[in-house]
Amino acid sequence: MELLYEGKSKRMFEIEDPFVLKVEYKDEVTTADGRKRGEAPGKGRLSNIITSEMFDRLEKMGIPSHFIERTGDTTQLVRKVEIIPLEVVVRNLAAGNITKRLGFKKGREFAPPLLEIYLKDDELGDPLINRAHAIQMDIATDKEISELKKRAHQLNVALIGIMEEMGLQLIDFKVEYGRDTRGNILLADEISPDTCRIWDPKTGENFDKDVFREGTGSVVDTYKKFYEKMEAVK
Amino acid sequence: MELLYEGKSKRMFEIEDPFVLKVEYKDEVTTADGRKRGEAPGKGRLSNIITSEMFDRLEKMGIPSHFIERTGDTTQLVRKVEIIPLEVVVRNLAAGNITKRLGFKKGREFAPPLLEIYLKDDELGDPLINRAHAIQMDIATDKEISELKKRAHQLNVALIGIMEEMGLQLIDFKVEYGRDTRGNILLADEISPDTCRIWDPKTGENFDKDVFREGTGSVVDTYKKFYEKMEAVK
Repeated sequence: MELLYEGKSKRMFEIEDPFVLKVEYKDEVTTADGRKRGEAPGKGRLSNIITSEMFDRLEKMGIPSHFIERTGDTTQLVRKVEIIPLEVVVRNLAAGNITKRLGFKKGREFAPPLLEIYLKDDELGDPLINRAHAIQMDIATDKEISELKKRAHQLNVALIGIMEEMGLQLIDFKVEYGRDTRGNILLADEISPDTCRIWDPKTGENFDKDVFREGTGSVVDTYKKFYEKMEAVK
Repeated sequence: MELLYEGKSKRMFEIEDPFVLKVEYKDEVTTADGRKRGEAPGKGRLSNIITSEMFDRLEKMGIPSHFIERTGDTTQLVRKVEIIPLEVVVRNLAAGNITKRLGFKKGREFAPPLLEIYLKDDELGDPLINRAHAIQMDIATDKEISELKKRAHQLNVALIGIMEEMGLQLIDFKVEYGRDTRGNILLADEISPDTCRIWDPKTGENFDKDVFREGTGSVVDTYKKFYEKMEAVK
């Protein structure tokens, strides 16, 4: 197997089937563009099984993704797509960088949910961009961006539902999309407490990577609790 | 006269007429959110006479503004408007912060011209925002933002024409808009080498505040040369 790409939290390998990639989730945990990092044994397994389960549930709700199947504790197979280098963020409540960057009070509700597009570029620090920037960069067409926004809003509704069933509240999330060989847009990357901000609506407890960002808890314990809640409503 | 507002480059005073303000241009020159500043005797006069002339020419081209009349070397009267706290930026070529922030090569052409909205907030460092942010902040309605964008693009066309007649090239500019007492949107603030980036297309010479930002020349001499070119095509 040839390593195609190694990111902060996963490795992607080419396999015999040219339309399929193998993803291996790592135990590393990073934040602040990789400036804060640590080892979290067991995290790779949890991110993998949570993301697999999420994509499975979304598929059943009519939201397809690149996910094919989980093949091991830390591995899954996905359809090979050309990743669109945008991070699409949807926010239901204000938390994280937007409170500092734009002065929104933490916990303030966004109605309708607020959508942002960031350029996926580590060197530039993943800056916020607007639709016109993305078009000028030849990253996506105007039509594709409309499609991404529509899909991200639909995904938000589905994810709110999944989390509500678990007794949790979806604060915000980040997703990436790709194009398949026919140019169709497909949900890609992962959906896990690494990429979503999730609160217990009663206690305000974090069920996400903020426990690492803020040093308030163990990533592995937190993701495990999240997974247990997920399994409880299977 | 009561001082209503003092900014980096001008003071606004209330006068007897409740619908009119007096603007006084200062000799101060600042950049980088005020972190770099200097005194430039004569700059206030130049900014005032250039802005007055610009608003006059725009009015004749069918683009009204808050400008009423110039009343002295450094003073002018303007219609009192409620300023919408957005900086609307239109870029024809890449230059300045966008080259560092998003990696666009200096001089790269934007076709169509690239429009950006920044939040006018010194404490937050005037961050880039998108349409949804502005709406969530109750700064402007969706309809108003469409109107601002349309107007800024029209203004760009007019300003390109004015500069071309002077043998110069408009690279980018920043404008502000306000609402009059009936809620109509009106072009406000100023239009001068403080708020526009202007190049000599043959030599690449700057006719704008970049001579101060980059320490390559005298602001007063530069603005004077700009005004002479302006007067030459009257």
